[in-house]
Amino acid sequence: MTGPRYTKLTNSLPATVPFVGPEAQERAMGRPFLARLGANENVFGPSPRAVEAIQSAAANLWMYGDAESHDLRDALATVHGIGPENIVVGEGIDGLLGYLVRMLVVPGDAVVTSDGAYPTFNYHVAGFGGVLHKVPYTDDCEDPEALFAKAAELGAKIVYLANPDNPMGSWHSGRDIVRAMDNLPDDTLLILDEAYVEFAPEGTAVELDIDDPRLIRMRTFSKAYGLAGARVGYAMGAADLITSFNKIRNHFGMNRSAQIGALAALNDPNWLAQTCANVAAARAEIARIAAQNGLVALPSATNFVAVDCGLDGAFAKAVLDGLVARGVFVRMPFVAPQNRCIRVSAGRPEDLKLFAEALPEALSEARSQPA
Amino acid sequence: MTGPRYTKLTNSLPATVPFVGPEAQERAMGRPFLARLGANENVFGPSPRAVEAIQSAAANLWMYGDAESHDLRDALATVHGIGPENIVVGEGIDGLLGYLVRMLVVPGDAVVTSDGAYPTFNYHVAGFGGVLHKVPYTDDCEDPEALFAKAAELGAKIVYLANPDNPMGSWHSGRDIVRAMDNLPDDTLLILDEAYVEFAPEGTAVELDIDDPRLIRMRTFSKAYGLAGARVGYAMGAADLITSFNKIRNHFGMNRSAQIGALAALNDPNWLAQTCANVAAARAEIARIAAQNGLVALPSATNFVAVDCGLDGAFAKAVLDGLVARGVFVRMPFVAPQNRCIRVSAGRPEDLKLFAEALPEALSEARSQPA
Repeated sequence: MTGPRYTKLTNSLPATVPFVGPEAQERAMGRPFLARLGANENVFGPSPRAVEAIQSAAANLWMYGDAESHDLRDALATVHGIGPENIVVGEGIDGLLGYLVRMLVVPGDAVVTSDGAYPTFNYHVAGFGGVLHKVPYTDDCEDPEALFAKAAELGAKIVYLANPDNPMGSWHSGRDIVRAMDNLPDDTLLILDEAYVEFAPEGTAVELDIDDPRLIRMRTFSKAYGLAGARVGYAMGAADLITSFNKIRNHFGMNRSAQIGALAALNDPNWLAQTCANVAAARAEIARIAAQNGLVALPSATNFVAVDCGLDGAFAKAVLDGLVARGVFVRMPFVAPQNRCIRVSAGRPEDLKLFAEALPEALSEARSQPA
Repeated sequence: MTGPRYTKLTNSLPATVPFVGPEAQERAMGRPFLARLGANENVFGPSPRAVEAIQSAAANLWMYGDAESHDLRDALATVHGIGPENIVVGEGIDGLLGYLVRMLVVPGDAVVTSDGAYPTFNYHVAGFGGVLHKVPYTDDCEDPEALFAKAAELGAKIVYLANPDNPMGSWHSGRDIVRAMDNLPDDTLLILDEAYVEFAPEGTAVELDIDDPRLIRMRTFSKAYGLAGARVGYAMGAADLITSFNKIRNHFGMNRSAQIGALAALNDPNWLAQTCANVAAARAEIARIAAQNGLVALPSATNFVAVDCGLDGAFAKAVLDGLVARGVFVRMPFVAPQNRCIRVSAGRPEDLKLFAEALPEALSEARSQPA
């Protein structure tokens, strides 16, 4: 039997995963992690109001979710001072990135991103046959000027920029990004991934006319709102672009209680503020632990900290392996020179205590390995 | 400003939705439905064990779901006597259909379905530029022989067949479908949508060597398991085909508590049996109400009943409008001659009481309208 006739593109793709999840690692190790600090999840958890709303909605999960995510979009529109027609809600930023790439990219189209930025975006671009062009980081920061210049040079359909950045935690002011957009071609779409922006200093979010067709901003309930497992992201942009999602998106793809939980989380700004304070304290504690071990923690506007292990990628990987072996789940950047760091998510005091205990041992083990 | 450069295909697509959801209808009407019998949701709800599992998991929604849906796939593998490598879990059958069409279809490719079958499948085919060829129903049943003959004639990459069927509720034995597959080309993939099979008589599910590369079977927790709002579907097929989903799927797209809830639901076969008994009683009650009003309820192997209103599509639409105006949400087939019917989902006694009260008025109103 010959079997299904895949597209040429499908045949060319590897079966892969942008990240190996912690559960898969736990199954491979045969034991659970003691501290889960690798996926930039928010260990401080969702608002109790969101938890209660989700629990109350559980028995009603026999109903499909609202295909328009009407109530959530309405509330988000109010928060952002834009119209609901400027907002699309989807299955996390990951899901929305997939839709967006699908709308714009055919095989061979040029797309620009930073070398070492979000792998899931790259996965989607490859999945639609786009050709990725990567611009190096500059001083551990994504480089808007260089990204937009490269996009102009190539006539790229899309340029991706995360602000704050993952995996380095660095950031630009929104004003600097808008200024750099002067050199962005009119027909290149900037995907500005602001997944971590709630943790960042005032002025980090971009402020720009919502009708500007060059920009779409991505936000999520996975990070500051502590609902990664619920899968709720949203994008903000010009109404034309937002409406275009309705051509292809999985209209009934949203989990009903996720919609309800996200709305409840949005309506609890005090919890959000408390979370951001908890995260700031955790960042300081990670920096303290790093310094105690002779390492440098990079400044961060996110819920994680890149800790410079002081040598190369192989050394940082050895440190990471030592932490993982001690039950502390962390990750690291993929690309040099950023991969001299390990990336540690903000944890509760008990999580960071485990990290503090494991790090000196992991470092000493890594140092004793043959170079 | 010129704005984003969409693909030619995207530009050609309408912004549309396969179904208008009940919430959108309620917003348009300015009041809620009194009985929700239009979307083939399972009003009897999920297993209390699933509800409890979802509630217990709510505070842990800060964690992403397991990208491999390992535990759920393991349990499903045991239930179906196949390997976990033969199962992919996704964001409802809708999500899985989208992935599958993407893997196989490029613009211009032929795809075969029944005229009046699942609109969301058609939406995905159009969304990837496939050319749909529709085969008429035969006596209110999808016609496997005719579908497979058409697929052979056209060299179609995919043929879609729902068994039991939606929107008519009719069904074939699994054996008859396997027999008809003798005339299915080796390189045409049969998507067998068994979303409603738990409600159907023994022998309706197809039994075929799981390694047969011509067949993929779709199942869901949205119907018999009462978890439509959770968005958990799965597909079973040859390991090669199942692995191919990992080339393109949104690996971290599954809601964590949906995975946990689905597993708990699967582990409560008594609740499933009770649900199926409740649904059978509701079908009988719908048939009784139909007969009381001089109408004929078609036999059904699903959780809904197509009620033949005895005239044409315009008349059935008038009946439907009358029901909707009275707060009873129902839907109807899209295509003649099936559109002489309205489609009523199995309801609780209180739901069906509202239907029984509204139907004579809706009928009388429809009959008094100018032809």
